[in-house]
This record gives sequence, C-alpha cells and structure tokens, in this order.
Amino acid sequence: MRATVMYGAGDVRVETVPDAHLLEPTDALVRVTRAGICGSDLWPYKSMEPTETGRRMGHEFIGVVEAVGDDVRTISEGELVISPFLWSDGTCVFCREGLQSECLHGGRYGMDDVDGGQGEAVRVPQADGTLVVLPVAEDDALMPSLLTLSDVMGTGHHAAVAAQVGPGRAVAVVGDGAVGLCGVIASKRLGAERIVLLGSNLERIALGEEFGATDVVRERGDEAVERVKELTGGLGAHSVLECVGLEQAVVTALEIARPGGAIGRVGVPEHDTTPTGIAFWKNASMAGGPAPVRAYIDELLPDVLEGRIEPGRVFDRTGSIEDVPDGYRAMNDREVLKFEIKP
Amino acid sequence: MRATVMYGAGDVRVETVPDAHLLEPTDALVRVTRAGICGSDLWPYKSMEPTETGRRMGHEFIGVVEAVGDDVRTISEGELVISPFLWSDGTCVFCREGLQSECLHGGRYGMDDVDGGQGEAVRVPQADGTLVVLPVAEDDALMPSLLTLSDVMGTGHHAAVAAQVGPGRAVAVVGDGAVGLCGVIASKRLGAERIVLLGSNLERIALGEEFGATDVVRERGDEAVERVKELTGGLGAHSVLECVGLEQAVVTALEIARPGGAIGRVGVPEHDTTPTGIAFWKNASMAGGPAPVRAYIDELLPDVLEGRIEPGRVFDRTGSIEDVPDGYRAMNDREVLKFEIKP
Repeated sequence: MRATVMYGAGDVRVETVPDAHLLEPTDALVRVTRAGICGSDLWPYKSMEPTETGRRMGHEFIGVVEAVGDDVRTISEGELVISPFLWSDGTCVFCREGLQSECLHGGRYGMDDVDGGQGEAVRVPQADGTLVVLPVAEDDALMPSLLTLSDVMGTGHHAAVAAQVGPGRAVAVVGDGAVGLCGVIASKRLGAERIVLLGSNLERIALGEEFGATDVVRERGDEAVERVKELTGGLGAHSVLECVGLEQAVVTALEIARPGGAIGRVGVPEHDTTPTGIAFWKNASMAGGPAPVRAYIDELLPDVLEGRIEPGRVFDRTGSIEDVPDGYRAMNDREVLKFEIKP
Repeated sequence: MRATVMYGAGDVRVETVPDAHLLEPTDALVRVTRAGICGSDLWPYKSMEPTETGRRMGHEFIGVVEAVGDDVRTISEGELVISPFLWSDGTCVFCREGLQSECLHGGRYGMDDVDGGQGEAVRVPQADGTLVVLPVAEDDALMPSLLTLSDVMGTGHHAAVAAQVGPGRAVAVVGDGAVGLCGVIASKRLGAERIVLLGSNLERIALGEEFGATDVVRERGDEAVERVKELTGGLGAHSVLECVGLEQAVVTALEIARPGGAIGRVGVPEHDTTPTGIAFWKNASMAGGPAPVRAYIDELLPDVLEGRIEPGRVFDRTGSIEDVPDGYRAMNDREVLKFEIKP
C-alpha cells in the first residue's frame, strides 16, 4: 500500500510499504477514506534529524473497517469509523475518567508496528476503545468537519475546557492556526461572552470572526497585552487558550489572563521552562496537554452532525496521498491552513 | 509604641515608632493582642539588602478595635477582630468573587504608612472589608488557632482548594512547615482519602500525622517520587500541595502528580522558571498563589470555634514583642516551627 514516510526535516515521501494487516485480536484494519496533516506534523518537518529507516506519519483519519480481530466486539466490517489521534483501550482507570490520552495501554500512530494515518490503510490497536462509528456515508459533505474530531477540534475544545470557558467569561485565544480557530468555535459553543482572537494572518482572522471571535488583536508582545486589557475592562481575560506552544505565546497567554483566570494550553511546548511568577502572583491557573479527543468525540459529534459547528472549514486544500509532500510544504510555508487527504 | 523593624538580612529590631493612628475615614485602629511570625518573613530575614530606614514587619494579627474612622460601618470600638494578611475593600469585582488577595484597592501591611502586625497597634485600611469580628474574649484558649486564620491555615486551605482536594482523592503535601501542616488539616477537612506528607523533620512529621497525614515520605528528589508512586498504586497523587516554593520542591510536586492531577502551589516562589513539559505531557494543572484568606476566614472560623480543627498547634513558642528578634532567629534555625507574639 502507499503511505507517507518522513526521513528528516523537509524530506517527506510517499512510498509503497507492506500492507496494513491485523496483528492482535483487539485490532481493526481500517481503509483510510480521509486524513489530515496536523500542525504538530510540522515540528519534525522543521527539525527532524535525517534517518535511513524513516518514520511513518499521520494520526488524523476516518476510514472503513475492512477486518476486525477475534476479540473486537463493538466495531464491525464495513462500518465507517473515526479514530482519535491516540489509540486507547477504553477500560483502564484513565479511560474511565475520560482521560484517554493517558491510557495505560494506549499509544501513538506511526510507531511500534502501528501504521500512520497518512496512508491507504491503518492497523488500529484496541479497536473497541479507540474507534467511533460514524452514522454517515463515506463521502458525506460533513466529512471535513468530522475529520477535525480526530484531533484539531478536540484539541481546541480541550484548550477551552482547561481554560474554564463558560457563559459570561471573556476569552482570549492565542494563535490563529487550525487549533486556535477551533478554540474559537469551542469557546462560542461553551457560551463565552467575548472571544478575542490573537493572530496576524488576515484570512485566518476572517475565518475566526466567522467562527465567533468578537475582537481581533493583531499586535504581538506587550502591545498585544495592552490591547487585550483594553478590551476586557483593564482586567484581562477570564480564560486564555494557548494554541501555539512557543515561549513568547505562552508568556503572552500568562500576561493577558485576568487575576484568578485560567490558561488552557494545548500548543505542543517547544520551550523547556515557563516563567513562574506571572501566574503565581495573580492566582492564575494553567492546565491542558494532549487532548483526550476520544472523550470529546462523543460530546462534539452531535453538533457536527446537526451542523451547529463547522470546524471542517479549517481545511483549505485537498489532495491525494501523492500530494502529501506538497501539502507539508504548503502548510509549512503558511500557504495552506490545513491540508485534507483523500487517498 | 513598640514595633518590629527589619534593617537587613538577620537584622531585626524592636523599636519605638510613632503611635499608630487613624488616617482615612475607612480605617480602624487595632491594638494587637496576638501576632505571628510568618515563614515568608524569613525570606527577607535571609536575603534583605541593608537599609537605613528599615521595613516594618508582620501581617498576621488579632486585636481589639480602639477607634474607627467615620465611614466604618461594620466594625466597632471594643470588638476583637482578626485581619487577613492583606487588607481589601470587600466591594471590588475581585472581592465579590472571593479573590480578596487581588482587591483593586487593597494592599499589604508594613508599607505605605500602614503599620506591620508585629507591633503594639496597627492602622487597618478598608476596615469594613478587611476585618472579621471574633465572638470570643481576647485570651480565649482558641487564640492560637484563630490567629492561624490570618494566614497560614488559610494558605494551607488555598493550596488544597487549588489542588482540587476532595473525597476519594489521594493527596500529597510537599513541605512540613506550618503551611504544609495546615495543608494536611485542610486536606483531611475536605475529605481526602489518603494524605502523604513529604518532609524530614521528625517533630513536624509527628504533628502532621496527628493532623491527618496517613503516610510520610522522608526521602527527597527521585526517591521521594518513587515512594509516593508506590503509595498511590503506581499512578501518583490526584492532588499535590506545594508548600515550599523552592525549585526542587516544585519539580517534585510536578513529578508526583498523577496524570490529570492538580498541583496547588502556595509556596512563595524563589525560582524564576518552572519546567514546562512535566505537567503538559500528563495533563496536570497548576493553580494557586497568594491566598484569599479573607474569604476563607468565613469558611474556616466555625471549625476552629467548634474545635474540629486545631491549626494553632503549629505555634510551638510564644514570646513578648521584645522577644521577636530571637523568634526570627529560632524559626530561621528551624529550632521553632512558628512563633506566637503576645505584645
């Protein structure tokens, strides 16, 4: 089958690899019908050391079940399913708490004999715990929005939950990437009164406004902090969604939070340390991490199916699997916000 | 009147200073009947640059109202009152939210013409918002426990609240100082199932066990992390109270938290940065800061008055105001846990 393999920074290839196949009795074999390139895929695209063996890529996908192992109970051949970006057993103590991202028996795609999502098929471990059946046909118009539930929409929602977004709260979203824009959707959905989007790209900002941002701050650093304070009665935002992961963005997120406010961070941190005093002296909290997307699919799916949210609009280019290397390039050049794959 | 003045590290003097007196119509003049030396007073005792003018000390006190300004409505001459370690107006947006430590019109004792608590009398600004009347006589046996409500017990409670302590939770308390021990009391009071106290001083540990610690970990660093994990089914603590403020203690607190756990930190941070990844990759939250003690007095006072908690046991030496310099020395030498002043 064809699949995406990264050999180093800037070196993404589509190659013929061994066909995905069942290994464990808890596996499902899924033929991929849609997949995405994630912002986090760009980190190795920028920085990965060259290797000879390469690394299988992709963790956002929807597909049709082609076979299941003997122990799989809830997933059947022929069903259309979505996978969260991590697989999980659904039964461990963390899964039962809704924190499937910490599953004791879970793991990541693209390593340890598990295929990546940017290919023609994937062996999905722990299929009962991991996969969610979608009640639509594989070419339904909702497919882009459904695909966001595998990662980016769930991650934006996680930022909003960690930032304690709710009715009456003033929210600031740091970052106008796909996660930040989904954070805007999540904040509106959770009842935020005011949603300030911090970003600089005009097209992305425009989409953020359509998603529910009430204000936009294009400044950076100290000027951005001043602008957010002006927009929030001088006090700062109750809830701040940090959707970038760079140190400057995290510092801005800490500084624009109101005393007693909450910062939800989902940007994969590219910095080793965070300033201690900014949050401490104003009693701001910080929470977040890899999103338990599996839990959020249950919560968000009805809103996608009934058209109340349209996170799929973050996909602004679609291509075949052979187009994936150019998709990486285009996203890395900020020419494309998010790339959808139809293998 | 006599009052405590610090002139530099290790240089604490008791001197005759101008008598405290009303300045603003919202002030109360309070004759101090009990006061405390706080662990945070030891930071300048260790590190303050020498000054010629000195700095008035003390922010934990109980006293009798001797006079009130014309605008004071709820406090009357002759009443016994307790002050939180910060004064606050009780009416601003933060005070109304129960976050009086962020009062827009509040401040600290011992600066800007406001007396310190380690003296014979104090001018208390914003008396209506700040002071709480105590329904006991000034020499009641409960006085040490009541005095802890000015800071240390409220601070331990804040750590527990920020760490989301509740029924069924496994709690770890980092630090066997007076705040950590009050954190043990608070954790038990909030229904924690298991309370692991991390500390090394045998007497303090023994008191912590009387307060409700179910387990003690005397190891430090990696060994302490291993021990806490052993005691919590290999997973770590749901709630971690960081009651020290040194970088190593904060790192330990982060490491012993369970995935999805909560760290409540109240130790005044002596370090500029905190590692980013430890909390992020396991979705642990961190909250806390200067405690809104004024809010917690209302919540904790009945438990002290009815003898359900006895935080006053953290005071293990009492002296007059003239003994205060030796009290600082004894606390700094860890010869005394906490020093009570009867001026």
